[in-house]
This record gives sequence, C-alpha cells and structure tokens, in this order.
Amino acid sequence: MDYDTIAAISTPIGEGAISIVRLSGPKAVMIADSLFHGSRSLSEAASHTIHYGKIVDPETQQTVEEVMVSVMRKPKTFTREDVVEINCHGGLTSVSRVLELVLNQDVRLAEPGEFTKRAFLNGRIDLSQAEAVMDLIRAKTDQAMNVAMSQMEGKLSALVRELRQQLLDILAAVEVNIDYPEYDDAEVMTSQTLYDKALGVRRHLDRVLSTARQGKILREGLSTVIVGRPNVGKSSLLNQLVHESKAIVTDVPGTTRDVIEEYVNIRGVPLKLVDTAGIRDTDDRVEKIGVSRSKQLLKSAELVLLLINGHEPLTDEDRALFRLIGDTPTVVLINKADLSLKISIDEVKRLSGSHPVLQTSMIDEKGLDELEKTVASFIFSDQASANSETYVSNTRHIALLKQARSALDDAINAADQGMPVDMAQIDIKRAWELLGEIIGDTVSDRLINELFSKFCLGK
Amino acid sequence: MDYDTIAAISTPIGEGAISIVRLSGPKAVMIADSLFHGSRSLSEAASHTIHYGKIVDPETQQTVEEVMVSVMRKPKTFTREDVVEINCHGGLTSVSRVLELVLNQDVRLAEPGEFTKRAFLNGRIDLSQAEAVMDLIRAKTDQAMNVAMSQMEGKLSALVRELRQQLLDILAAVEVNIDYPEYDDAEVMTSQTLYDKALGVRRHLDRVLSTARQGKILREGLSTVIVGRPNVGKSSLLNQLVHESKAIVTDVPGTTRDVIEEYVNIRGVPLKLVDTAGIRDTDDRVEKIGVSRSKQLLKSAELVLLLINGHEPLTDEDRALFRLIGDTPTVVLINKADLSLKISIDEVKRLSGSHPVLQTSMIDEKGLDELEKTVASFIFSDQASANSETYVSNTRHIALLKQARSALDDAINAADQGMPVDMAQIDIKRAWELLGEIIGDTVSDRLINELFSKFCLGK
Repeated sequence: MDYDTIAAISTPIGEGAISIVRLSGPKAVMIADSLFHGSRSLSEAASHTIHYGKIVDPETQQTVEEVMVSVMRKPKTFTREDVVEINCHGGLTSVSRVLELVLNQDVRLAEPGEFTKRAFLNGRIDLSQAEAVMDLIRAKTDQAMNVAMSQMEGKLSALVRELRQQLLDILAAVEVNIDYPEYDDAEVMTSQTLYDKALGVRRHLDRVLSTARQGKILREGLSTVIVGRPNVGKSSLLNQLVHESKAIVTDVPGTTRDVIEEYVNIRGVPLKLVDTAGIRDTDDRVEKIGVSRSKQLLKSAELVLLLINGHEPLTDEDRALFRLIGDTPTVVLINKADLSLKISIDEVKRLSGSHPVLQTSMIDEKGLDELEKTVASFIFSDQASANSETYVSNTRHIALLKQARSALDDAINAADQGMPVDMAQIDIKRAWELLGEIIGDTVSDRLINELFSKFCLGK
Repeated sequence: MDYDTIAAISTPIGEGAISIVRLSGPKAVMIADSLFHGSRSLSEAASHTIHYGKIVDPETQQTVEEVMVSVMRKPKTFTREDVVEINCHGGLTSVSRVLELVLNQDVRLAEPGEFTKRAFLNGRIDLSQAEAVMDLIRAKTDQAMNVAMSQMEGKLSALVRELRQQLLDILAAVEVNIDYPEYDDAEVMTSQTLYDKALGVRRHLDRVLSTARQGKILREGLSTVIVGRPNVGKSSLLNQLVHESKAIVTDVPGTTRDVIEEYVNIRGVPLKLVDTAGIRDTDDRVEKIGVSRSKQLLKSAELVLLLINGHEPLTDEDRALFRLIGDTPTVVLINKADLSLKISIDEVKRLSGSHPVLQTSMIDEKGLDELEKTVASFIFSDQASANSETYVSNTRHIALLKQARSALDDAINAADQGMPVDMAQIDIKRAWELLGEIIGDTVSDRLINELFSKFCLGK
C-alpha cells in the first residue's frame, strides 16, 4: 500500500555531532533531491548509497547545512518504503531548519512511532516486534536489552505462532469430525483426545507465561524502596547502589537528578528506586520520613531493603517496620557492621522470618556484594537462564497470554465433562484469536494507533 | 598521515529513534566488520554504501543490535580517513553496548572534537572552518547558523587568505628591493609605496573587522537585562519575549527551565536575557530586586530594557534607574499604555536622552512589534546585510585580526616616518603570521588541542 510521505528528526534532541532528518514514503527521494546540491542528483542514486552535498533553501538559495544523505529504496528499508536520511552536523537550529525546508514540500510531520508503524503495516515486522523496537530504546540494562532484542528478532513471535498452529490443528480436526463424519481416515476427535491435545497446548502456554515475572521486571524494573529509621545509613546505601552499579538514568547528561525514581542496575536487574529524592533530601527532611511515610512507600514496593543499625539495640520503630513489611520480598541489612554489634541478631532473625539477613557496612563497603547476589537471586534462580530464554516482558502480551490460557481452560473443562467437541470449538477459536493480537494478526486499528502513539518521535 | 582508529557515540545522548557509533581511522572498516553479521562483509563493500545487518558480541555470539552500517572510504570523508557509522535503534543501553564492543577491539575512545580535529590535521578544512562546525552546532538563531555556515564554507578563510596574500606581496617586493637592488625591472619599494600599500591592506582589514560586533552578537547573543521598579510588568515582558519569539534553549525537552540565562530570538538577534530566574521568581523576591541589584546587572549588560509604569507619575526610583543606565544601549518602555497616562512623557524623554522611548502594553501586546524592530536596529542598520556579509564572529579571530591590524599600524607608522622599508618588514611578517593563526597555518599544537577540547564528544 502507498502512504503519503512523512518526515521527522530521528536523533535525540540536544547538542551532538550528528542529527538526522528521516523521510519515508513515495516522494522521499524526490523531495530530498529538490533541496540537495551535490555532485549528482539523488534521483539517479543507487539504493543504499551515501551522498555528500549541501541543503540549499530553494527560495533564498542560501546554504543551510552541509550534509551526508543516505538514499534507501524500497523494499529493503526500515519502513519498506523509500527512505532518505539527511545526516546534519548536529545542533538544534540547523536540523530544525532542514526539517522546516522538508516540511515546506509535500511532506507531513511524522507522528510518534509512525516509521515503525509503517514497518508493521507494510508487513516487515509483526506487532510484538514493533513493540520490541521501543523496548530496545528504553531498555535500562543489558539484560532488558537482550529481552527486547530477542523479541525484535521474532523469537516471541515464533513461540506465539507455534501455539496458534497447535490450536489451529485441534480446530481443523474438530471441524473435519463435524463436517465430514464419514471420513474414515480422519482422526476421530473425541472429548478425550481434545482434552489431551488442549492440555498439551496449555502446558506449552504455561511455560511461556512462566517467564513473565522475570520478563516484566527486566523490562520495567523492580520497584524497590529503602526503609529504616533516621541515620541508619539509607542515604549511604543509595549512594553505594548508584555509584557501585552502572547507574542508568542518572548517567545521561542534561537529565535532572532531582527525580523521584532512579534506576540502578544490579547484575542485570533494573531496580527502580522509589522516593530517592526523599532520601537524598536535606537531613532535616530525612528525619521526618518516619513509619507513616514508609507505610505509604511499602504499598507499591516489589522489593524492600530494610536497614537497621547494628550498633544500637533494636527500637520499637525498627520492630514496627518489620511488621509493615509482611510478605513483601525483603532483604534485611544490619548496617554499621564496622562498629561493635549491639543488636540482638537472634531477635532480628526471628523478626525477619524467611527474609534473608545480611550484615553490611557502607564505610567498609562490606556486604554489598552479597546484597547484589541476594537481589539478583530474587529474580533469577539460575543466572545462565537470563540469557538463553525467550521472555514475555510486555504487560499487554502477558494479559493476552493469560486470557488465552483462560479460554483454553474453558475448552479443557468442557472436554473433561464429556461435552461434545464442537462445544469446545468456540473457546479454542477465541484462544487462537487472543494469541493473534500479540503479533497483530487480529487487532483493531484503534489499538494499533494507541500502541504506536507511545513511541518517540522520529521512530 | 595515519593515525590510530577512534570511535565515539556521535548522536546526542537521550531517547531517540537513531543513535550512531562513529569510527574513523585505518582499522575502522575491519573492526566494524568483525562485529557485523550481514549478507556480505563490510571489507568488500564499496565506499559510501549502507549495509543492513546485526552487531553480534564475538564472545557470547549474542545479537546486540539490528543496525545499518555506513562504510565511507578515504579520502572523501569527514576526517579524510576511513569512516564507519553504525546506525543503531536509539536507546542509551544498546548504543553504549555497541560502543563497548567496538572499544574492546583495537580502537580508542575519541576525545571531544577529535573527528573534526582529524579533518583539520588531514587538511580537509582549515582551523576557522573547524571552529565553525562547533558554532553551527551551538547556533541559537537562523542568522547565527548562517554566519557559522558561511564560515564553514570557507568564506572567512578566503578573506583571510586574501589579506595574507596582499601582505605577502608587500613582503616579496621589500625583499626583492633588499636582496637584488640591481634589478631594474622590480618595483622600487620606497617608504611611500610601502605606506600606500600597507594602508590599503589596513582598510581591507578594517572592513572585515567592522562586522565583528554583529558577528559576535549573532554567535554569542546580546546580554540583555530587564530593569524597572516592582510591578511595572517585567515578568509579563519576559513572558511575551519568550513566547512571541521563537524561544531557543527553553524549547529543548529535558533542559531545565530554571536557568539564570535564557535566549530569545528577536528577528535573528539572539538576546541572552540575564537573571530571568530572578524575574520569574516568586513575587516576594521580585519585590526585593531593587536599584542595588539592577546596578549589578547593568554592569554586564549590552542592552537594557528599562520599564516604567505609564499609569503612575515617575518616582525617584525610576529616576535612579535612568542615571544608572548611562550610555548603555537602552530601550525605554512606558508600559501599561492600556491604562490612562499619568506620567510626564516630556520628563521621560528628557531623562532618556538619545535612547529610544516606546509606549507598550503587555495586555494589549501593544508596542512589542516596535520593540523588536528597535532591538534589531541596534544590531543591523540594514536587515538585508545580515544575510549577505561574511561576519567575523569568533572572539579568537577578532583578537587576531586586531593584533594583525596593530602590527600593520606599526609598519605604517614606520613608513610614515620615512624609516627604511626593511624596518617595516618584521611588522608585516608578524601581521601575516597572526592572520595565519586564524586559519591554522601558523598555530601551536597546544592551541589546537585546546580549541578542539571545547567540542562535543563524537564530533
């Protein structure tokens, strides 16, 4: 299908060496050519070639930028349309000016994600692959990146297609039995065989879903709060985590450090540290963060780092924090282990229940390695598996897989109760459709528009 | 000359659709090839071609990114070396990972500006052109961009070379006279002819330097302060200027608005508004900015916007501000012109002296157009000239041109006093050398290193 021609700045906005204006669509080459002065015309350029020249304002004949222009002709492009990338010297003013000149022609400013949307609509990638493109851009750790990359390469799509094929096989067998009961050589689909087959698919589905928890954490980070009485070392722990680990978001120049959430990368697990501003704040304010604030924070926590001061006996406030934690995954840190121990380890262990207890010292950097190991073990029982498996990481995909499993369960139950096989047909069809939504085979325009609108501009 | 191979991320850091790792040097293609899995090897690729493939970690065999790789072979490249650009999906994690893999090979992380430095050292551009590259990136308005672009295209270099040639011609004539006095057909260089010729060059130099003020303002912005008593409308004027004009720096997502300086673009003139935080601050603080603070601000001002309230009689505080301004270029704004005039226009005009006086209303947006016109006229007597002339804009260039002029003056004075022509020789030679520093013909390694270190990474 032929769409109109779109353009956008495709590099991050800011001061840098290279900025790119990307065009896609039937007129991409022609329009770039009308602004380009080089040793030859872009229209005559072979596909996948690069051309040095100048962008000249056609009205004033003034040179606006010195550029390298990449010409890529369909269908072997990101969008499967003609794509031109105008590679500018960087700088917001000049790249904006080039975009402005482009938009003066018969070109429309691309919507967020519209290039990737075209890649999907033109059949180059399926929906889950398109979503992976955005995940890759936003990945916070190498492992999150690996998950996105594997999804972009189509590994999740392949799993989903396999599941759908198995469902289709069941459906086909059922239909043959219903429509052509006289066929002797067709497999007779009794409720028992349907039960067996559906259960097989369900087990397969379960295996895929079993990666969801890890996948989601790798993609979105694990909401982590640091709690403890004033002066137990929360701020030092935070600094250690941020500086020891590869800090993620805070590494980016120009981003504000004054954020409520901060990501740190603990052995591939992205911890989303909540309320770090509160911890970093003036000593005065830290003192004010007491039990009531901790209660608030703990509500949304997926992981708690509870600090207590080993150099002092336990206080009632400490005990109150232990009660607040309940079943939330927690690591208890007996801090200030460089000083003499004045706390009752036994009581701490009793209060901690099944939560691991570590002794740490932010001054000696003692116990931090063990802390990282413990945190990582919350997510990966086996480190090796982090790289080999195909993870489901996207909330939308997880929800669809669960709905498909539930539809399949309906079919399994019906078969289990000995109901006629055609009763199960509708449930299996529904499971097949739900899985199709993951890869975008059966999906509404509205959902597509909504999904791509979350992309960044120029992608 | 063959240098080692360098690499860096060349796109701005942040979330975007495309990020680029750029390599330059003799091993650029080989190293990129060792990480690249595509339908063909990059080593066999023709120059200026683009290749789709994957970057694979050679140790784990894991796919790290889906990429488009541009191969550009010397000498027709930015650095005049082999250049490879690895075009990633954006996202800090993946582009950092690609850079990491590249740096595991025999490649060094490029220093800031090192790609441009190589373009200079390898003779593709001269020093003033290299400096223009950075100016282009940092340009705050279209006109500043035009100045940088014209400099990058070598227009300033051409002027400087012309001046140097004229000086060389004088030097040659002097030397022929000294070394071969017996040559009858050589032009006899008397102190009078030397005087005439040197004065000709000086006039030419003056013409170039006459653009320095405008050039410097276009490049660096005009330091502007808004002063006035509390509640005369300073904050409204600031907002009008920022919103009416194309706001510059504040448009960039992710940059803090909480800056002390803000740039606005008034008809191509970048105004650097000083202490806008003070004006934007809570009403309480605004009230505190009185005459003493204004005195401070006025010291560094190149342009003053003095607001007075037309709806009230002049106060002693207003009169004090008029005295403070003195000769600093100022536009006096009789504000609140939507209300009845209760001020003595005559007294205002008398106090303003030669400074222009306008009546404005921030509510009716009255007088703003005239204000912009007046501000622009401070810089460009004739708007057309802003586009046609070659501006000297860089402080380093301006200083060198002035030093050269002073050396030339020494020669002119010597000649004027009838001293032997060989006395003037050394001064003219010095002027020639100083001009050479602008384009980097005669310049120390230390200065080169210092200049390029101010560039951004990846350029």
